[in-house]
Amino acid sequence: MTKAVEFYFDVGSPAAYLAWTQLPKLCVDTGAELVYKPILLGGVFKETGNSPPISVPAKGKWMLADLARFATFYGVPLNFNPHFPINTLFLMRAAAALVTAEPERFEAFLTAVFTAIWVDKKDMGDPQVTAEVLAEAGFDPQTLVELTQQDTTKEALIKLTAEAVQRGVFGAPTCFVGDEMFFGQDRMDFIQRALQ
Amino acid sequence: MTKAVEFYFDVGSPAAYLAWTQLPKLCVDTGAELVYKPILLGGVFKETGNSPPISVPAKGKWMLADLARFATFYGVPLNFNPHFPINTLFLMRAAAALVTAEPERFEAFLTAVFTAIWVDKKDMGDPQVTAEVLAEAGFDPQTLVELTQQDTTKEALIKLTAEAVQRGVFGAPTCFVGDEMFFGQDRMDFIQRALQ
Repeated sequence: MTKAVEFYFDVGSPAAYLAWTQLPKLCVDTGAELVYKPILLGGVFKETGNSPPISVPAKGKWMLADLARFATFYGVPLNFNPHFPINTLFLMRAAAALVTAEPERFEAFLTAVFTAIWVDKKDMGDPQVTAEVLAEAGFDPQTLVELTQQDTTKEALIKLTAEAVQRGVFGAPTCFVGDEMFFGQDRMDFIQRALQ
Repeated sequence: MTKAVEFYFDVGSPAAYLAWTQLPKLCVDTGAELVYKPILLGGVFKETGNSPPISVPAKGKWMLADLARFATFYGVPLNFNPHFPINTLFLMRAAAALVTAEPERFEAFLTAVFTAIWVDKKDMGDPQVTAEVLAEAGFDPQTLVELTQQDTTKEALIKLTAEAVQRGVFGAPTCFVGDEMFFGQDRMDFIQRALQ
C-alpha cells in the first residue's frame, strides 16, 4: 500500500503556501504520494465557527513574525501580500477542477498561483491580474473561467470542503497521514515521522 | 550578559505544562536563565479578544490529540484534566507572590501544581484538594492563602498579566528571548536556536 499525505489547502493562506514549499520534497524523501485537496477556507471557518488568526490583532501580528521565521528556516521566499485577505473562490474552484481534470499540470498551476500571491504579492482576487499570471504559466484563462462556471466544478469544491470539515479540519493547511491529522505548516517533522 | 528565557504561563494550560517539562533542561543546555512570569490566562484572553482553542470544538479536539503527540515525543506524562477549565486565580496569585518572595522554592511549587493538574488530574480549583497538594509539597496552605489575599500579591499578578499583554502575549505559554516572542509549547526548537 502506498503511503500518502493528503494536503487540504487554500492558496489564500500563507501557512498553506509554506507547507506547499516543503511537502513535495518531504513526500519524495519518504516515498509518499502527495494528494492535493483544494478547499475553500472561508467555508471551513463558517462551518466550524473558527475565525482567521488575524481577527485577534496580537495573534495576527505574532503569526506574521512566526511565518517569516519559518520561511527563513525553510530557506524559501515569503512576502506578505498587501491585498490579503484575497477572495480565492475562482482560484480554488479552478484548483478543484484541475486536480482531477489535469493532474499532470496541477503542480504548474499551484506554483504559478502560490508564487503570484506569496512571493510576487500580486492581487490574485483581480480577474485581469489572475488571467495574466495563468496565461504566463501556460493556461488559457478563458477556458479556466468557463470551467469554474460549471456546476460540477462548483460542486467539487463544495464537496472537498465538506469532506475536510467532516474529517475534523478547522483551518489550513491540514494534512492527513491515514487518519492522523496534522494542522499547520509547523508539523512537517511530525508528518515525516508518521510516514517513516 | 546572561541569556534568558522569559516564560509567561498559567498552570491551567496543558500547553504551558508541556513547555515547562522542556524549558529547564533547554536552559541548562544553552546556559540560559529561566525567568518565570506567572500570568492569568483569562485576563490575557479578555484584554486581547482571544478565546481558548476549545471554544471551537474541532480545534479543541485536534489540540488534545496534538498535545498528546507532543507528550509522547517529549517522553513526559500528560493526562487531560477532567475538571478543565480550572479556575487558577488562587494558584497564579500564589505563583506571582512566591516567584519573588521564595524563588528558591518556586520550582518545587510549580512541580507540585503542574503535576497535580496535568498528571494526577486533581481538581486544583478546589481549595481542599489544593491545600493537600501544597502541604504534601512542603508548603503551609494557610500561609499561602493569607499571601494571596494581600493587595501586593493581587497587584503583582495583575501587573505581570498587563506586562505580558503589553509585550504582545495573547495566549500561553509564551516565551521571550530578548524581544523575540515565541507562542506555544511547539517552538522549543526555535527558542533553542535563538539562544545559540
